[in-house]
Amino acid sequence: MTKQSYAIIGSGALGGLYGALLAKAGHEVHFLLHSDYEFVKQHGLTVESIWGDFHLPSVHAHNRAESIPPCDVTLLALKTTNNHLLEKLLPPSTCGAGVVLCLQNGLDVESDAAAIVGNDRVLGGSCFLCSNKVGPGHIRHLDQGRIVFGEWGPTAIPISERARRIESEFQSAGIEVNATHDLPMTRWRKLLWNIPFNGLSVVLNASTKELIEDNNSVALAKRIINEVHAGAAGCGVMIPEMFKEKTMEATRVMVPYDSSMRLDYLAGRPMEIDAIFRRPLAAAERAGVMMPAVATLADQLSFLGRKHSA
Amino acid sequence: MTKQSYAIIGSGALGGLYGALLAKAGHEVHFLLHSDYEFVKQHGLTVESIWGDFHLPSVHAHNRAESIPPCDVTLLALKTTNNHLLEKLLPPSTCGAGVVLCLQNGLDVESDAAAIVGNDRVLGGSCFLCSNKVGPGHIRHLDQGRIVFGEWGPTAIPISERARRIESEFQSAGIEVNATHDLPMTRWRKLLWNIPFNGLSVVLNASTKELIEDNNSVALAKRIINEVHAGAAGCGVMIPEMFKEKTMEATRVMVPYDSSMRLDYLAGRPMEIDAIFRRPLAAAERAGVMMPAVATLADQLSFLGRKHSA
Repeated sequence: MTKQSYAIIGSGALGGLYGALLAKAGHEVHFLLHSDYEFVKQHGLTVESIWGDFHLPSVHAHNRAESIPPCDVTLLALKTTNNHLLEKLLPPSTCGAGVVLCLQNGLDVESDAAAIVGNDRVLGGSCFLCSNKVGPGHIRHLDQGRIVFGEWGPTAIPISERARRIESEFQSAGIEVNATHDLPMTRWRKLLWNIPFNGLSVVLNASTKELIEDNNSVALAKRIINEVHAGAAGCGVMIPEMFKEKTMEATRVMVPYDSSMRLDYLAGRPMEIDAIFRRPLAAAERAGVMMPAVATLADQLSFLGRKHSA
Repeated sequence: MTKQSYAIIGSGALGGLYGALLAKAGHEVHFLLHSDYEFVKQHGLTVESIWGDFHLPSVHAHNRAESIPPCDVTLLALKTTNNHLLEKLLPPSTCGAGVVLCLQNGLDVESDAAAIVGNDRVLGGSCFLCSNKVGPGHIRHLDQGRIVFGEWGPTAIPISERARRIESEFQSAGIEVNATHDLPMTRWRKLLWNIPFNGLSVVLNASTKELIEDNNSVALAKRIINEVHAGAAGCGVMIPEMFKEKTMEATRVMVPYDSSMRLDYLAGRPMEIDAIFRRPLAAAERAGVMMPAVATLADQLSFLGRKHSA
């Protein structure tokens, strides 16, 4: 079977890492870049990773979506705060029969891509990844890295052939990956971490290590996790109880890390409040479940984001 | 009728202001001072107030509670974070038949004084006051200033003779004051403001003006006010609905002001989290009412306080 071609829309800490691994494994990979374009075109990509360091001296770098050819798989790795750009960024690489794999944070973020390419051409996934872009074309992958992805829909969907093929190619490229039949479960389980730890790291100006070592922030994180767990249940996603404690434990053993939201905040970039907070809040509320501590965090983040950018 | 004598335990922005007004009106007033003692002993007290500026060149200044003689009324105006000192500070001025008027923030804070002088010798009150200590023995009273006080107990109690006498003396001294038969109502109504605006001003690092001008913090403050209102109702205190909006409106017309909790935080002093948050949370929980946004704020404040003092 020929190797599929990939387009990476958003070649940062996440898209850059996975795209580089796929390119290293011999796939045709097209990277859409913004500020790093000139540098990467000249010098390629450098990856420091717990899976092994490497350098790609030459990659297919693009500074306009229009120059990307049709690809079999388009990895959507932009921040959701840029989803208003998808109308322009997605059509070139998806003008063939290719699919979109949306690796963005949050809930129901696939709907934005689906509005452009159609519901039946979208998969979604969560990345459990600690990775930072530390310089132009330079990615540092610190911890974890697993992708869990599957067909997108309101409920569980059997693992498709196309998902199996992507899974197999990712595995061959050295990426920890699992195809799943239950994307909603995957999304909500990721939110179990993202909502408390992204939110509190910004509002309390703290690293995950600080948050996990203080009794009050631990109590608060647990309370928030309980709310998210109940919100998921309201939406029909029954996360096993043990994942509550597993989420705390994962944070306890995590390398000290600034959450992506905190990095965005400190850098003065917009935060993914809509994808990570407002959409889950709205979904839970439609199901009749209120998440008052989550709503508190969301409003605090909105206030801080506005103040910071003012 | 002879004028009553007063002891002021905690001669800061609040105790200093009311004590100075009583002294100016001809009462014997004993001020317990800490860092300002030497200055005040030499130079007296200076008050800038919306009710009129004045200077008292000579006052009864004390740097030890032991030197204060028995007084008719002991005004307790310490921060509740210092209530562990009451065992030492209250006995001298209360060793006669005098009463304690507890003007501290929070809920059920009178119980700390009552444990020392007995339940039947304690009154409590809330001050709706914007006042800062701006230098040694120098108080700046910016806005409002009303005291609402009454006999202390778990439910409403008819206004007593001794409360009427204190009310009358405060009025004669130019202080806006109302005796009330319903101290629990007074306490919870004050909490309706203190919980959202003290808490958010610290967590969001914002003045009341900033909080009242942002849609997200306004929505959040309203959500918190709803919780406090329900908590009060659980405790049998039925605050009329209109006070929710009145609380927001009072903040809207308030001079831009740093809440006392924010000033404490910025100065590295302990915050009154126990009195203003934990005691109301516990009282509501005993009544079966959860206040999750309030609990969120409380844990955030505890985290920030610990981090700040670390």
